[in-house]
Amino acid sequence: MEGIFITFEGGEGAGKTSVLKTVAEELNTKGYDVLATREPGGIEIAEKIRHIILDPAHTSMDGRTEALLYAAARRQHLVEKVLPALKEGKVVLCDRFVDSSLAYQGYARGLGMDEVFQINQFAIENRMPDITLFFDIKPEDGLKRIAANKGREQNRLDMEKLDFHYQVYEAYQKLIEKFPERIHVIDASQSLEAVQKKVLRELQPYLVNSNCNS
Amino acid sequence: MEGIFITFEGGEGAGKTSVLKTVAEELNTKGYDVLATREPGGIEIAEKIRHIILDPAHTSMDGRTEALLYAAARRQHLVEKVLPALKEGKVVLCDRFVDSSLAYQGYARGLGMDEVFQINQFAIENRMPDITLFFDIKPEDGLKRIAANKGREQNRLDMEKLDFHYQVYEAYQKLIEKFPERIHVIDASQSLEAVQKKVLRELQPYLVNSNCNS
Repeated sequence: MEGIFITFEGGEGAGKTSVLKTVAEELNTKGYDVLATREPGGIEIAEKIRHIILDPAHTSMDGRTEALLYAAARRQHLVEKVLPALKEGKVVLCDRFVDSSLAYQGYARGLGMDEVFQINQFAIENRMPDITLFFDIKPEDGLKRIAANKGREQNRLDMEKLDFHYQVYEAYQKLIEKFPERIHVIDASQSLEAVQKKVLRELQPYLVNSNCNS
Repeated sequence: MEGIFITFEGGEGAGKTSVLKTVAEELNTKGYDVLATREPGGIEIAEKIRHIILDPAHTSMDGRTEALLYAAARRQHLVEKVLPALKEGKVVLCDRFVDSSLAYQGYARGLGMDEVFQINQFAIENRMPDITLFFDIKPEDGLKRIAANKGREQNRLDMEKLDFHYQVYEAYQKLIEKFPERIHVIDASQSLEAVQKKVLRELQPYLVNSNCNS
């Protein structure tokens, strides 16, 4: 039986990465066969592509170059890691996917969500996530969390102005309107425990028929 | 006045790179302001992308990943090098461009020429070449030339089977049918001098109105 493909989306500092980790552990404990991943996810070719994208020295990088590189890394990660796991019936939890490109490159950088969707369709060949969780937090609150979390390395995207992050937030609102069945909104302003519980409740109906070894 | 954008296309060993060099020198001597380039063309970001594409270790690279990476490198080279040169009125000679992706990834690798054209349209925003020269040589003759030219480093593409190169050749025939005004066919089986003369004759009508300092 084909597994289930769940993506975690949201702005910077929404806590989705921490929640993904704890949710993966919880599902593992319950007996589900889980793959927790994020692009580039240890895939050598995709790691190298991401290195080019996030290098702070590349200030001359054009927005369309960036969008194409994200799509390329996405493709390789999907083919080498996500699709094989789904074929094995796994619950795949992926930190960011197509929606991130639509929000960041398509909307916030102004390339056009439809155009960015097109190059991503080339990359994913219609394999959209079965469920997407949007971690809802106001951009300034997310950025405050990042600043407080000193252990986290700052990259080029963190350095963008607050206005950019508001654009990203606005884009996600448009995506929620456009894909109301796929995208589930999670209030991410609460504690990690509360958010984790909410996520598990949201996922429960989809996991019932999934591959559980317990 | 906007410059003129000329691309050189063809299979492996067609001699287009050598001819491009000598034609650039000849036009320079005649007083034209010339930019001779090829992707990635010394553009740091594009060089790094090309390094990923051509690494012989990357045997697991998916065809769609490769096509997206070529489009990304193309975009950055176009924006950083080609468009500024055209704006300065230069004659830009470029070794390979969109047609190569359509032939290699779109047709020979079977991704579909229309689909590959779409991601390339995202990359070039309609800036197709003004003239394209197709260097016509039978695939086996081209590969023989490469084998004889010991100084040239062999890359992953050279190692593909002869059948692949025939597919590439067939794809170029389709492109010539589709873009008869843009693509000019040059018999590349002759001597370098003969081919160079033919190229200059083909380009002459387009250069008359171009930026010539002599």
